[in-house]
Amino acid sequence: MHTELLNDLRNQNPIVFNISNFVTVQDVANGINAIGASPIMSQEIDEAPAMVQISSAVTINIGTLTTKQIAQAKVVGETANQYHKPVVLDPVAVGAVKYRLDAVKELMNDFKVDIIRGNAGEIAALADIDWQAKGIDAGTGNQDLDLIAKTCAQKHQCTVILSGVTDVISDGEHVVHVKNGTTLFQLHVGSGDMLSSVVAAFAAVNDNLFEAAQTACAVFATTGQIVAERLQEERPGTFSTELMDELHLITVDEINAKLEVESK
Amino acid sequence: MHTELLNDLRNQNPIVFNISNFVTVQDVANGINAIGASPIMSQEIDEAPAMVQISSAVTINIGTLTTKQIAQAKVVGETANQYHKPVVLDPVAVGAVKYRLDAVKELMNDFKVDIIRGNAGEIAALADIDWQAKGIDAGTGNQDLDLIAKTCAQKHQCTVILSGVTDVISDGEHVVHVKNGTTLFQLHVGSGDMLSSVVAAFAAVNDNLFEAAQTACAVFATTGQIVAERLQEERPGTFSTELMDELHLITVDEINAKLEVESK
Amino acid sequence: MHTELLNDLRNQNPIVFNISNFVTVQDVANGINAIGASPIMSQEIDEAPAMVQISSAVTINIGTLTTKQIAQAKVVGETANQYHKPVVLDPVAVGAVKYRLDAVKELMNDFKVDIIRGNAGEIAALADIDWQAKGIDAGTGNQDLDLIAKTCAQKHQCTVILSGVTDVISDGEHVVHVKNGTTLFQLHVGSGDMLSSVVAAFAAVNDNLFEAAQTACAVFATTGQIVAERLQEERPGTFSTELMDELHLITVDEINAKLEVESK
Repeated sequence: MHTELLNDLRNQNPIVFNISNFVTVQDVANGINAIGASPIMSQEIDEAPAMVQISSAVTINIGTLTTKQIAQAKVVGETANQYHKPVVLDPVAVGAVKYRLDAVKELMNDFKVDIIRGNAGEIAALADIDWQAKGIDAGTGNQDLDLIAKTCAQKHQCTVILSGVTDVISDGEHVVHVKNGTTLFQLHVGSGDMLSSVVAAFAAVNDNLFEAAQTACAVFATTGQIVAERLQEERPGTFSTELMDELHLITVDEINAKLEVESK
Repeated sequence: MHTELLNDLRNQNPIVFNISNFVTVQDVANGINAIGASPIMSQEIDEAPAMVQISSAVTINIGTLTTKQIAQAKVVGETANQYHKPVVLDPVAVGAVKYRLDAVKELMNDFKVDIIRGNAGEIAALADIDWQAKGIDAGTGNQDLDLIAKTCAQKHQCTVILSGVTDVISDGEHVVHVKNGTTLFQLHVGSGDMLSSVVAAFAAVNDNLFEAAQTACAVFATTGQIVAERLQEERPGTFSTELMDELHLITVDEINAKLEVESK
Repeated sequence: MHTELLNDLRNQNPIVFNISNFVTVQDVANGINAIGASPIMSQEIDEAPAMVQISSAVTINIGTLTTKQIAQAKVVGETANQYHKPVVLDPVAVGAVKYRLDAVKELMNDFKVDIIRGNAGEIAALADIDWQAKGIDAGTGNQDLDLIAKTCAQKHQCTVILSGVTDVISDGEHVVHVKNGTTLFQLHVGSGDMLSSVVAAFAAVNDNLFEAAQTACAVFATTGQIVAERLQEERPGTFSTELMDELHLITVDEINAKLEVESK
């Protein structure tokens, strides 16, 4: 696990361009900023190519997808492919809402996604594996999470992060588990979206995207765990505030001291 | 007062679908999540029916209304009526901006609203009672608040929450006062919007909507009061963070110990 | 420096209307509210004239500009000119994205902007001075900041705030430095946008806009500095929460005791 990538990220301060949902966008921007990258957001298709060109990585989050945003995402994805900028996709609620699943499938025909980050319900839907997603939540199912992540990665020929109590990361061949984390992530709505954009920030500073994805999960999950362990109770508001603090303050040594990673 | 509905809400974890304004949407989502329900938001008319069908209640907040959103709200309201999902309306600034009052009146012709939650200026406007609203704030007027809430409820044949220092809840016949609360609610912009969606979460787990509305106000106002009493000064930022904590931690016993309710 | 304007602002509680970007809008609304003014936001061109008429000042922030928003901004700016309401412009990323620079130039042909608030990269772009802006960040350049602010103010015949480690405020003739502040402002994405709307709140209560701009910077920078000095470490999350607290609690005497201002 190359946790020292965190120092590269902070030294390079890469610009991460985000097609964001309006629910969690403020947290996402602040999270990117706190960890040491530079966020930029846009809703306008006419500036999409310029946005991609000034950025080092792109996140497409469909949390509040509109038809207008689908058109914007198409241009962004195609331009990112053209300029070889990594594309991270966060397929919010594709397991629960057919409109979103159809839209995402269409987008993935138009351009190549390099990393997908979602919960079990979302990744299962993109792997065509049966699962009962619940709204924006993971929901429940009987399938093996490793198999879901691996199948999704193979199907779309990309790196997949199935995040949850344990983050499962696969490139279609290998599977890595990041076992750090806290239940407080589920109590704060922006956690998953923030992780997706943190993944893009790491992808901006490392060409090995499977490695970047693992490191991003390791840094984010460990930071959250450290914050949660300091709190005496489940305090989602305080957790959110102190997560922002700690994303800025955390060091590679602190992460390494906590890290629990398994290669399967 | 059926404060034990809070436990039902937490056990059932209902999905609450929100047409939100982009100012307070993050707080609303986190508030719904913290108290024990599951938020989902959308801006796209094409997924509106699906969103309603996976949800147990709907909130329509017009805080940053657009013509596109009016069209979306129409489909959402009609689908909710069809599938018997309770509809909560938050008529932000209808007392100050004619465009919004007209839009809301049109929507209320198209579908049935089950609960309206607003401040004095907004409820007075929907009751056709003279009042000087001020932007998004309640403003000032000489009319009796009980009369305003009751008239509005009669006129629209629904439950009305006129929230303020004292929350006045009416079904058109009865009036209940929840006297808990804190001035800090006015210092945090998202408070009212959060309450409206918390009302929807309670409406999702109890068919008696007048009862659900009272309980939502009781839980929300008491939680805010408990947080405010712990602070030594008026700290709107800290209040907002700790309100999120307390919405998750508060118990029925703690609420009952503080509750000040009056039936008029 | 007329820091006692803060008391006027709190006594008058002016409505500030904001065309906001969806990234920082919640912070902007809460910041306006916390300091003692009343925020209102809108995305709909059809209610634009009404919004301006009920407000005492207007902020146009282009942080997530769309073609639709350009049309709305045009109506808002023209109506504000007509009704003599001060207009504050926040030209987010005009130094880095040509689409935005073109849009802003077009808007400034359509109506008069009274105060521009941006970072060095943004103000340099509007002054036609060479500078390397970086996304939403100031970037780097060799030009004198006083000259940039002064040139921009002369070119657009308005007051200019070039904010940064030192805030440089110019009316095209005079230049004032507010040397207060903290590096934590850069670590919290909403800081600049909040300042722009706080500037509008002061412009709403004082006809001398150069004076209003200076006072807004003095109050905001000093408040941030006081919060930062209390923190032992660079904690962007806690800073953001306590900045909101302090914007509400800060007194004119506390500001005067800290203030470091220079007239050049």
